[in-house]
Amino acid sequence: MKILVLNCGSSSIKYALYNMDDKSVITSGGIEKIGLPDSFINVKLNGKKTKIDAPVPEHTAGVQLIFKVLTEGEFAVMKDLHELDAVGHRLVHGGEKFSESVLITDQVMKDFSACNDLAPLHNPANIKGVNAVKALLPEIPQVGVFDTAFHQTMPDYAYMYAVPYELYKKYGVRRYGFHGTSHRYVSARVLEYLGIEKAEGTKVITCHIGNGASIAAVKDGKVVDTSMGLTPLEGLIMGTRSGDIDAGAVTFIMDKEGLDTKGISNLLNKQSGLLGVSGGCSDFRDILAAIESGNDQARLAKEMYTYRIKKYIGEYAAAMGGVDIIVFTGGAGENQWEVREGATDGLEFLGVKMSVEKNHACRAVEATISADDSRVKVCVIPTDEELMIATDTLSLVQK
Amino acid sequence: MKILVLNCGSSSIKYALYNMDDKSVITSGGIEKIGLPDSFINVKLNGKKTKIDAPVPEHTAGVQLIFKVLTEGEFAVMKDLHELDAVGHRLVHGGEKFSESVLITDQVMKDFSACNDLAPLHNPANIKGVNAVKALLPEIPQVGVFDTAFHQTMPDYAYMYAVPYELYKKYGVRRYGFHGTSHRYVSARVLEYLGIEKAEGTKVITCHIGNGASIAAVKDGKVVDTSMGLTPLEGLIMGTRSGDIDAGAVTFIMDKEGLDTKGISNLLNKQSGLLGVSGGCSDFRDILAAIESGNDQARLAKEMYTYRIKKYIGEYAAAMGGVDIIVFTGGAGENQWEVREGATDGLEFLGVKMSVEKNHACRAVEATISADDSRVKVCVIPTDEELMIATDTLSLVQK
Repeated sequence: MKILVLNCGSSSIKYALYNMDDKSVITSGGIEKIGLPDSFINVKLNGKKTKIDAPVPEHTAGVQLIFKVLTEGEFAVMKDLHELDAVGHRLVHGGEKFSESVLITDQVMKDFSACNDLAPLHNPANIKGVNAVKALLPEIPQVGVFDTAFHQTMPDYAYMYAVPYELYKKYGVRRYGFHGTSHRYVSARVLEYLGIEKAEGTKVITCHIGNGASIAAVKDGKVVDTSMGLTPLEGLIMGTRSGDIDAGAVTFIMDKEGLDTKGISNLLNKQSGLLGVSGGCSDFRDILAAIESGNDQARLAKEMYTYRIKKYIGEYAAAMGGVDIIVFTGGAGENQWEVREGATDGLEFLGVKMSVEKNHACRAVEATISADDSRVKVCVIPTDEELMIATDTLSLVQK
Repeated sequence: MKILVLNCGSSSIKYALYNMDDKSVITSGGIEKIGLPDSFINVKLNGKKTKIDAPVPEHTAGVQLIFKVLTEGEFAVMKDLHELDAVGHRLVHGGEKFSESVLITDQVMKDFSACNDLAPLHNPANIKGVNAVKALLPEIPQVGVFDTAFHQTMPDYAYMYAVPYELYKKYGVRRYGFHGTSHRYVSARVLEYLGIEKAEGTKVITCHIGNGASIAAVKDGKVVDTSMGLTPLEGLIMGTRSGDIDAGAVTFIMDKEGLDTKGISNLLNKQSGLLGVSGGCSDFRDILAAIESGNDQARLAKEMYTYRIKKYIGEYAAAMGGVDIIVFTGGAGENQWEVREGATDGLEFLGVKMSVEKNHACRAVEATISADDSRVKVCVIPTDEELMIATDTLSLVQK
């Protein structure tokens, strides 16, 4: 079985072709700058990455280009498109309609479009991707895997905001959470890794720390709380996003700086986070380098960043009545021991005892980084959202 | 020594006259609706409360009226104003200038006025009160006790927001915290109550749950984090305030409802919290009654309210590396066992073991409500901000 995974953004399409017999990636890549004069496609095959300039005016042309690359010329891996069994899509905001992955139908797309308001940049781009595939391969089964779905098990007291109830009824104002596919993957995978057979009875905190960052409390295999909210701005400090902030500070800054909602959204989403505090670095590696050179704002950014992860760990332990397993994933979560060290510093009272050595040694591989006698297991599990999408797609197509 | 405590709001002045020889309140009361045609003063004396209509066009007239009530007519408790030794004021926002109470001087008032931007409703009213006293009794010593001062010990990584650093430099955008006088009083008092002599080595979480609500992590007697922020909107859910909310939801609601910053501030400060979720009740007692009558939004409001306190307890335990003592104070914190039960439910992993009986029995008295064998002591300590102000005033005047 060959499954193509697509992640369609407003000006990009990432793809990965899976051989599901052994769950391996045959080839992958991505189109960037759709609609711009300098659009191009990156193709990864046999460990080599090639950039090819190509005009991609819109998403259908983009999908067509990917299909062409897969079947013609030097990067071809299939004779023709009929070898493809199904396409799986990352769909961003499924609102309250979708609590699991689904086979895409007209009704599904109608329900998904109804969530456009909640993700005005992402959902329309996702829809373009689905429609492009449909136009080119009308018969192929397509599956939608939602970023929000895994979080749909939250109880209402965790997902509601304390604003007038009508706002929930009228516009769906509530916490949805994102990165659900990653939290689902690592929360399940860590149990396999630790040889735990049943999710029932487990209390897991999953920390997805990448350029975007979110954290989830997963009890008995189900999310009971998560840090991203109605939008992906809430919660942890991110590369350029503020995360949690006093709503009174939001209006204070708007008034002082003369910003409208678009202006403050831009400030909080693109000029804040590590970048805003450090005054220049949005990447945690650059922060570390800046600290080395004596930059005190970078020191502050690092401490805020890890302190907030630590506080959320305490918060979610309280939400679940304790914690057994803490998982780190995402770019910084997998690669930076400094993040994991800062985020777990002083959590001995929870039963966390880190192994400095194991933590320092671990880079982007599955590993336990707590001490052998730590009651709480702290693990690194590299995330794999694409594989999760391919796996869901396979299982829905085989039904 | 006789000390008058004043709490001047934009249209009200509360007062209490203390005999500091035994720390007793001689008389107290308050003026309401300053500047309105139906302004009046309430006078409490010998357990009796009397309402007297009186024209109070502005604050100086208000202070004059209080002085008159204290020295003339049926509620007089002093022959003349020279019996008064000092006046202590509640001052709301001291910014970063004031980390403790101070004897008021011209320079102090200049520095305090510089914080007006951070509390545009409260600080100017406080200043009017100080000026009114000065106009009427130019020689009397006056003391300022700041709502923000006790929180000034927070480390920078706890008080900074992850927004562009210039916003801190330009406007002082950071977490300040409020209710500081209450957190200071109960965090010190609980140690006395438990017979603990030194604050060093203690980890205390103080939950001030009134109509406004905030929580503080107090380590070694010093605040290391608190839930209110630049403004008193952040943190816990309150009677009519939302507390924490996704900043992305703030702009989403503004766009959907066509609100400007004033409109959304009004919505989040006055129509949200328990009131907004329940659709009618801002008081926790009314919430309980509504639940009795089967109102599910009231049930939701209660669960959100207590769940968020619980999460903050976990968060602040993480911030301090554990917790030894949890204190409840404020109207609902002192009186409602339901709040305390919900907020501590499932915290056994922290070492909390509640006594259902003691918790149910306690109403607004100093008490330990955890079980005898609970590692973490959970206590109720009725707050007394006025006494704290009087005590600070006395000690500064005697210096």
